[in-house]
Amino acid sequence: MKLALAQLDYTIGDFAGNSSKIIHSVRQAKTEGAQLVVFAEQAISGRPAYDLLNDPVFLEQCREALEEIAGHCNGITAIVGLPLQVENKTISAAAIIRDGKIVKFVGKRNVISRDETQHLGNSKGFEIVDVDGVNIAVVIGSDIHIPNLDFGSDTDLILSLKSTIYSRGIVARRHEFYSKMAYRKQAKLAVLNHIGGQTDIVYDGWSTVFNEKGECIAQLKGFEEDFTVVDLAAPLEALPLPEQNKNANVYRAIKLGLHDFFVKNGFSKACVGLSGGIDSAVTCALAVEVLGRENVRGLIMPSKYSSDHSVEDAVALAQNLGIRHDIVPITDTYTAMREAITPLFDGKPFDVTEENMQAHIHGAMLMALSNKLGYIVLNTNNKSESAVGYTTLYGDTVGAISILGDLYKTEVYSLARYINRKERIISENTLTKAPSAELRPEQKDTDYLPDYELLDVILYRLIEENQSVDEIATAGFDYDTVKKVYTLFIRNGYKRYQNPPVLRLSTVTLGKGKILPLTYDLSCLL
Amino acid sequence: MKLALAQLDYTIGDFAGNSSKIIHSVRQAKTEGAQLVVFAEQAISGRPAYDLLNDPVFLEQCREALEEIAGHCNGITAIVGLPLQVENKTISAAAIIRDGKIVKFVGKRNVISRDETQHLGNSKGFEIVDVDGVNIAVVIGSDIHIPNLDFGSDTDLILSLKSTIYSRGIVARRHEFYSKMAYRKQAKLAVLNHIGGQTDIVYDGWSTVFNEKGECIAQLKGFEEDFTVVDLAAPLEALPLPEQNKNANVYRAIKLGLHDFFVKNGFSKACVGLSGGIDSAVTCALAVEVLGRENVRGLIMPSKYSSDHSVEDAVALAQNLGIRHDIVPITDTYTAMREAITPLFDGKPFDVTEENMQAHIHGAMLMALSNKLGYIVLNTNNKSESAVGYTTLYGDTVGAISILGDLYKTEVYSLARYINRKERIISENTLTKAPSAELRPEQKDTDYLPDYELLDVILYRLIEENQSVDEIATAGFDYDTVKKVYTLFIRNGYKRYQNPPVLRLSTVTLGKGKILPLTYDLSCLL
Repeated sequence: MKLALAQLDYTIGDFAGNSSKIIHSVRQAKTEGAQLVVFAEQAISGRPAYDLLNDPVFLEQCREALEEIAGHCNGITAIVGLPLQVENKTISAAAIIRDGKIVKFVGKRNVISRDETQHLGNSKGFEIVDVDGVNIAVVIGSDIHIPNLDFGSDTDLILSLKSTIYSRGIVARRHEFYSKMAYRKQAKLAVLNHIGGQTDIVYDGWSTVFNEKGECIAQLKGFEEDFTVVDLAAPLEALPLPEQNKNANVYRAIKLGLHDFFVKNGFSKACVGLSGGIDSAVTCALAVEVLGRENVRGLIMPSKYSSDHSVEDAVALAQNLGIRHDIVPITDTYTAMREAITPLFDGKPFDVTEENMQAHIHGAMLMALSNKLGYIVLNTNNKSESAVGYTTLYGDTVGAISILGDLYKTEVYSLARYINRKERIISENTLTKAPSAELRPEQKDTDYLPDYELLDVILYRLIEENQSVDEIATAGFDYDTVKKVYTLFIRNGYKRYQNPPVLRLSTVTLGKGKILPLTYDLSCLL
Repeated sequence: MKLALAQLDYTIGDFAGNSSKIIHSVRQAKTEGAQLVVFAEQAISGRPAYDLLNDPVFLEQCREALEEIAGHCNGITAIVGLPLQVENKTISAAAIIRDGKIVKFVGKRNVISRDETQHLGNSKGFEIVDVDGVNIAVVIGSDIHIPNLDFGSDTDLILSLKSTIYSRGIVARRHEFYSKMAYRKQAKLAVLNHIGGQTDIVYDGWSTVFNEKGECIAQLKGFEEDFTVVDLAAPLEALPLPEQNKNANVYRAIKLGLHDFFVKNGFSKACVGLSGGIDSAVTCALAVEVLGRENVRGLIMPSKYSSDHSVEDAVALAQNLGIRHDIVPITDTYTAMREAITPLFDGKPFDVTEENMQAHIHGAMLMALSNKLGYIVLNTNNKSESAVGYTTLYGDTVGAISILGDLYKTEVYSLARYINRKERIISENTLTKAPSAELRPEQKDTDYLPDYELLDVILYRLIEENQSVDEIATAGFDYDTVKKVYTLFIRNGYKRYQNPPVLRLSTVTLGKGKILPLTYDLSCLL
């Protein structure tokens, strides 16, 4: 059998656009002599559609798009994912289309993705479909991970329609999982994934075909649309998994996520508040890479506590990137605001209030530029500072999307060095100086927090590895430090609740992967 | 059988406090001669605990609390709800405790609450438990709504451990549902609910016992802790459902939610930005009712576009409530900010940018007061303006909690009149003047939006009744108006994404009950 795999970038609700892409691939598959062409989970609708999955108009349009696609499938079988209304619920299904007719639907058994448990129901699960004498087990989404699935000994091909979200390290883990499954089940195995960004999600592609030995015999691109036809009957050479570089993958994931966020929303221009620090430098460099230097603008907003080198570093970055940048001091606004509100302060001294006030003015200035000229504000927070609440709500937390919010500070540094791999875009000073919010004299992040090397290790254990304070302390970390970090993490959930969408790059993205109540007794966990 | 019902207000994670309340009620039940005492779903842990439900430390503490409670149950049977780890998942369960021993767990069959689908697994469902010769069907949470549950003909009592969230009209609907079920199943039926606020949730209590005729034979209080012992064998008079007044219930729900948000978080003081408008007036009046006038403070922040009557109305409200209020003009700050940023505006004229700038300064001023003196900022947005995005993100959307965000504008007026039922707290002018943000000369909300009477009806159909644009137009509304409202609703999801928690008072709270993708092709729904 000649099998075509179409790995495409869909837009949620763009049934005309998605169908057109799918039909184009059907035609290409026929041209190349394929008997079967396959598409990802919920390809027709795009994913995740959340409550649109229960909107009758949305489902009806999806069904109509399916009919139209079916009309273009004469002389070929197509298997394409879509949400489907069955009785009183919507399920994630695959339509089997043969010679222009929809001959069968296969549904997903267990809905486990957090993006879908509120919106989709469970169904029967995988089924064996005969396509030109080849027995194909059609498995939707995460069902492939159900332990001990028994496809029977007659199955020739396992077809896994996926919608796997990128996270660090997943490409290699997934490759190994599927390779072992093909070998264990003694069947060929084809995996078809989405690519593309959907607000905070990046689908990374890397669709693959394995043979019964667990060898990879076809490998589609990562982070790009791709199409290939594989002759399953031919003796094919085993392909190695392309070398995976963590920074390169993160870089490509962010670029794709940012690109699709802008294109699918009809945005073209972005602005970034440039502090001279590492986070805004990396955010801005990525924006320029994706949108072009003519579409990115930097706003440098020094206060009376800004050091000379900050403005210099910010200007140098803007010059290296070749973007328009403006210096807009906040001092007069800050002075006016303080004069107006300070009489209410009962004579209390300078504290975090005045620091936040400056950050609020930064946020307001960025939003003003955005409102007046259409530059979309990019948030510059990282995961470390969001986790411990070392942020000003409505200040540096503003923005339409956070592209670094799922990277720990140490990972932001690592990505910065990757960005500098060919030429120095981010200055040595930005890379090496001690991080500071510069909202009070001589301020440094380490005045409040452990060194980021230590903080990030503790946070990773707390968040990604779900370890308790006691477990981390037992592993050799100072109990009081761990307790302080955990306490900060819990106490600052209220800020994260109001943060912009964070581009997901890890298995536990703040605000999505670990949801804690905002009102509860903290002591039970310490 | 003498059955004790303990309707209590729990704090998530406060195992010591929750156990202590439960044990106190066990003692009281024994004192009053009850053979069985029952508690709500997930009483021991508090609810909803989100990802704490999968935290081993949390579950272990919950288990320990259960053991301690069991130790106090000699000479009585207790049925108490808790999350329980079973194999690789956590389920919502009831522990049956008899004579100091945990004799059985009953689990919830279908997890359907949006607060739990990401965190809990399904289980076996109801079981019949024999307590002193009485056959009791123990049913956890929403399982009671599974169609055609068959408890068998030997069941004497159906026990429904609930955690029902308040929404408008639910008390009467629930009463009717349970009454019919008792009659249909020809069994007595006891419903045990939580009361209390958990951030955005209010549990409303109203625990009830019905006899086989469907008559209510015991009725606990709404919105308050309560305890009662019912002799199921005695001939008891049928009680009518206490009269339900929508405004009174909403008023009590908000008061309870606000009270518990403050008490459970250890807060005591609140501030409100007073505009002279209806939303801030109602928010402030409720805060004073809950926290006391000495703990509420108003900030009046006129701009050059504020009318005289706005400040007068705001001052009058503060005086009627007897709270401290300060007038802090934002004009100088606004002027300074405009002077700093306007050179970047390419000569473009005054537009929504300058309106938002004023709102951002309002937000910053409120946060400054909060940061310096510990006043928690109460958000004043209503559901109508949030739905159509007639708000300034990081401006009037700031706050720790939104207490009116699930009330349409017309409902806010209705609540205002209820607040004025005994004495005039909110001025006639605030009640009758045309709503305006007063961020540009002569501005009125109706410059942008349909009249609220019309807008609210359309929004209710779109949001609560899930009707499509076509359906609403067919019902007699102007197509273009409906389409405009729906387009605004969809396009402004990005603002609602970053809003504070909204106290839930309806069946479809924005941001919780109807979740739409932020990036998608809008045209598919129009």
